[in-house]
Order: sequence, then C-alpha cells, then structure tokens
Amino acid sequence: MHDTLVAHMRQVINLSATDVEIIERLFKPSKLDKGEYFLKEGKVCRHIGFINKGLLRYYINQEGEEKTFSFGYEGCFFTDYESFIPQVPSMQNIEALEQTEILTISYPDLQLFYQSIAGAERFGRVAMEYVFIDTLQDLKSFYADEKQLRYQKFIARYPAIVNRVPQYHIASYIGIKPQSLSRIRKRMAS
Amino acid sequence: MHDTLVAHMRQVINLSATDVEIIERLFKPSKLDKGEYFLKEGKVCRHIGFINKGLLRYYINQEGEEKTFSFGYEGCFFTDYESFIPQVPSMQNIEALEQTEILTISYPDLQLFYQSIAGAERFGRVAMEYVFIDTLQDLKSFYADEKQLRYQKFIARYPAIVNRVPQYHIASYIGIKPQSLSRIRKRMAS
Repeated sequence: MHDTLVAHMRQVINLSATDVEIIERLFKPSKLDKGEYFLKEGKVCRHIGFINKGLLRYYINQEGEEKTFSFGYEGCFFTDYESFIPQVPSMQNIEALEQTEILTISYPDLQLFYQSIAGAERFGRVAMEYVFIDTLQDLKSFYADEKQLRYQKFIARYPAIVNRVPQYHIASYIGIKPQSLSRIRKRMAS
Repeated sequence: MHDTLVAHMRQVINLSATDVEIIERLFKPSKLDKGEYFLKEGKVCRHIGFINKGLLRYYINQEGEEKTFSFGYEGCFFTDYESFIPQVPSMQNIEALEQTEILTISYPDLQLFYQSIAGAERFGRVAMEYVFIDTLQDLKSFYADEKQLRYQKFIARYPAIVNRVPQYHIASYIGIKPQSLSRIRKRMAS
C-alpha cells in the first residue's frame, strides 16, 4: 500500500524501518470514486495526498465555466498548497476522473511527519522546490505559449494520461474549445 | 552585518552560537551600485541573496520591452529560483534601483548550510512555501485583476518601497502605461 510512496521518498532521503512505520501510520489509505471530489472550492484543504492509482483533475470556476489547470496521476502528490499551507478556504476543485486510490496525510499529521523523521524536512523542501518550478512554468505556458505548442507540452508532461483524459478537459487545460483541439490534433497527425 | 538575516531565520528555527558562526561564514557581504545587475538573462543564477539595505527590480525582456514583475527590499531573500534550483540559464534580470547591501550564498555553500545546521532544511522548506504562495498569487493577480485593484495590491504588498520605485517601473509591474497609472492615482486621490 505504501511501497510507491516510500520508494518515492527514498529517491531524496534515507528512511529507516522505524521511519517507514511512521509513514505507514501517518499516511492513511482511502479511495475516491469516479466523479467524487477530494476538494471543493470554499472549503479549507485539510490534507496532502499521494496517488497510488487513478487520475485527478484540478479546476477553478471562472465566470460560470470550469477551467482545468492541472492533472494528477500515479506517483503524484496533490493538494491545493495555497489553501493547505495557510489553512484558508480554497478556490480550487479537485475531482477524480477515474476510481482513484490515494494515501492522505492531515495538516497536523504532516507536522508530526516533519518532527519525527530525520530527513522529512529535506524531503519537504525538495518537493516544494519541484512543485514551485513546475507550477511557475505551467502558469507561464498557459499565458505565453501558442496553443499547438501547449498541446505538445501537455503530451510531453503527461504521457501516462494522454489517452485517459477526456478531450474536452484537455482542451480546457490548453485554453481552447474542443473543436480547436481537434483541428490541432489533425494538423499534427498529417 | 548578519543580524537581520539571523533574526529572520530565528523567526522559524532555533540557532546556536555555532550555527550563527556558520551562517556568517557562508553568507558573504557584497554591494551593488545603483544600476548594477545581480543577474542577467542567459546566465545561470549562482547565488541566493538577502537584502540588508536597498532595492532591487526583477524584469524580463518581452518583445524588446522590459516587463517588471517583482521587487526586493530590506529583509527579503532574492534569486531566480527557476534558474538557481536546477542551475540552468535564467530568463530574468535582477537590477539594483538603489545602492544595495546584500549577503549572498552560493549554490554549493547552500548545500553546506543545509547539511551543517539542524534546522536549516526546515527553514528552507518554510521559506519555499511562502515564496511559492506569494509568487502564485502575484502571477494570478497580474492576469486576473482589474488594474486599479492591482495598484492597490502593490501598495499593500510593498508599503516600504512605494515612494522609492520610479512610477514607470510601478506601471510596468501593474501592466499599464505610465499615463494610465497617473490617471489611477488621481482617481484614488480624489
């Protein structure tokens, strides 16, 4: 259940058998059905999650329209950091696009994790650095990149889920109508 | 010389006398003249800095135009994380708008800092969390906020430097022409 998560952490820090026991106690397994929400706007995001299996979509509501801005899949951490870190209400929605198996840790248990495991702060620091750079590049790409390039970047960034995400969600992520995405895909195929 | 930096870190972690000596050795004092650059686009950002006194402006060149997107002043850390963390060439420029006194730490010395001081990783993690949230909110504000609101947010965020930054740099930060900023200021004054 916790093997992938532990292997993921061991890419950055050493973990003793005791550390692994602590992780198994603090990260609690749960499931999201297809269409179920991990987070709804207006709520405080109380957990960070790790995906063992499945697929999540992040979106905001903007003038009555759902704007998809990210996806999570096997081996990804997920949360709304803007809500989780200061513990304030979120403006995001995180929805399962498939039946999804996750491990979640609550805000107080995360503080325990940082206090109980020698390398935990290091792992947290390095993870934050990656998330920060990824998010920055993504946001800039959304506003600056030409749409076909943005679709190519989507394929390069999310190879594991290209064929699992409905086309209209991909179109929303790119910032175009589904018909325009069809045209881009046809142009790239020919 | 290192008092403000040490006090800043002590808001997050405990530091022994030995820790402070390590910090004094790793963070090296230097100065930037007005108009001098800490970082130029195309170069790899090799240092993180802390500002003891002075004022910095961050900008990118976009289609021949300088787009100001952030400022640094007394008590702020500064770097281009997108260049510094993976050690790849930067697309940013960081320029001193005043004579500026800084403490800088190199990439290898920062790794030493993390290894030598018990709370350093924790400080790094918490600092990254703040930078991440600040940067996200700033980027979103740039694209989503009405211009007068954006000017009000600038004043709220940078009270210490409102009267030290030339108006045309503030206008660039907001994303408008200097004439439009004059109109907003007049409207707000009346």
